[in-house]
Amino acid sequence: MKVLTERFTVSTRGKGTYEISREVQDCVSRGGLTQGTATVFVQHTSCSLVLFENADPTAREDLHAYFDRLVPEDLPYFVHTYEGPDDMPSHIRMALTRSSEVIPVSRGQLLLGTWQGIFLFEHRTAPHQRHIVVTLMGE
Amino acid sequence: MKVLTERFTVSTRGKGTYEISREVQDCVSRGGLTQGTATVFVQHTSCSLVLFENADPTAREDLHAYFDRLVPEDLPYFVHTYEGPDDMPSHIRMALTRSSEVIPVSRGQLLLGTWQGIFLFEHRTAPHQRHIVVTLMGE
Amino acid sequence: MKVLTERFTVSTRGKGTYEISREVQDCVSRGGLTQGTATVFVQHTSCSLVLFENADPTAREDLHAYFDRLVPEDLPYFVHTYEGPDDMPSHIRMALTRSSEVIPVSRGQLLLGTWQGIFLFEHRTAPHQRHIVVTLMGE
Repeated sequence: MKVLTERFTVSTRGKGTYEISREVQDCVSRGGLTQGTATVFVQHTSCSLVLFENADPTAREDLHAYFDRLVPEDLPYFVHTYEGPDDMPSHIRMALTRSSEVIPVSRGQLLLGTWQGIFLFEHRTAPHQRHIVVTLMGE
Repeated sequence: MKVLTERFTVSTRGKGTYEISREVQDCVSRGGLTQGTATVFVQHTSCSLVLFENADPTAREDLHAYFDRLVPEDLPYFVHTYEGPDDMPSHIRMALTRSSEVIPVSRGQLLLGTWQGIFLFEHRTAPHQRHIVVTLMGE
Repeated sequence: MKVLTERFTVSTRGKGTYEISREVQDCVSRGGLTQGTATVFVQHTSCSLVLFENADPTAREDLHAYFDRLVPEDLPYFVHTYEGPDDMPSHIRMALTRSSEVIPVSRGQLLLGTWQGIFLFEHRTAPHQRHIVVTLMGE
C-alpha cells in the first residue's frame, strides 16, 4: 500500500473551465499508482472541480452560461460583495459543484469514461493561481 | 490493507433515480472489506449519483420534478443540443449532483443512515446501460 | 497503513451552517494520521456538508439566503411534505451539496486552504442531532 501527496498549480485566465485530466494522470503515473483512488482537491472557495463532457467545447460554454444565470452577479440581497460583484456568486457556484473529486485508478490509469474530463471551474473574473492537491492511495 | 476494484452495470429505463445500495453492499461483502471506504463512480457525463431518502417514493418524484424545472430542456441559449433537448440538461444536472460518492464502511457494512440510499440519477430520456466502478479500500 | 473510523455528533439549532473543521482536525490528530485522506460523511438526508469561506460570516448568510430562494418551501408541486414545508426542500438542498467531503491530510494536518472551513449545512427548521462519521486512511 502506498500514500502519496502530489501538487500542481493552474493559472486561470478568469471565469471558465480548464481541463486538468492530463495533469492528474501525470500524478498517477509519476507516483506509480496501479490500483486505488486519486483524490483531487482545490484549496480555494471561489473555484471548484467538476467532471464534464470534454469532447465538444459548446457543452462547456452552455455550462458557463447556465451558471451565470443560476447564480447571477446582481442579486440585491447579497451582502458579501467586498471583492466585487463576482465575489459572492463565486462562493455559491463553488458550493453547487465540488471541492474534491475522487477518481478510481486501475492498471495505472484513471478510470474516466470516454467523454469524461476533470475540470477546474474558475468562478472569479480575474486570472488566479489555483493550487491543486492530489492524494494517491492504493498499490 | 486491501484495494479492490469492482464493477457493475445498471440498465436504466430513462429519466429517474435507481437505487443501487444493495449492489454496492454486495461489492463490499464480496470483497470482504470490514473497515474503510467504498468509492462509487459513474463513468458517464449524462447521469450521476446522489444519496437520497429511500423510504418514501414521493420524495424522489419531487426531486425529479424539481430538477426538470431547475434545468429545463428548452433554454434558448443552449447550443449543445445535437442529441436532443435532453442532451445539455443531462450534463448540467450531472454537474449539480455527483460523479462519485464515498461511503464509509465499518464491520463489513456501508455506514448509511436509516433513510439513506445510493441512487443512480439517470438524466437521459432513453434507456441506457450505465457503468459503475466501486473501489474498496481499507482492511 | 492505517484505517480508523471516528464519529462525533453536532447539535444544530435549526437551519444554517455549523463549522466542524476543528472536530475533524481533532479526529486526524487523535488518530495519528500523518498522510492520507479524511472522509467526512453525514448519515442524514436532510442536512449536508459543504466546504465554504470561513472568515466573513456574511458569506454564509448570503449562502443561506440563496438556498432559501433556490429551493423555496412553497413549491406547489411538492408532494412529500408530511413533516412540514421544510421537509422536501431539505432533501433537495442536501442533493445540491454533499453527503461526503474528502480532505487531503499531510504532516498531520488537513490541507484546507486559508479561507476553507468544513461546515455542516442544516436544512431543517427544528434543532437536530446530526451524526458524522470520519474515516481516516493513510499512514
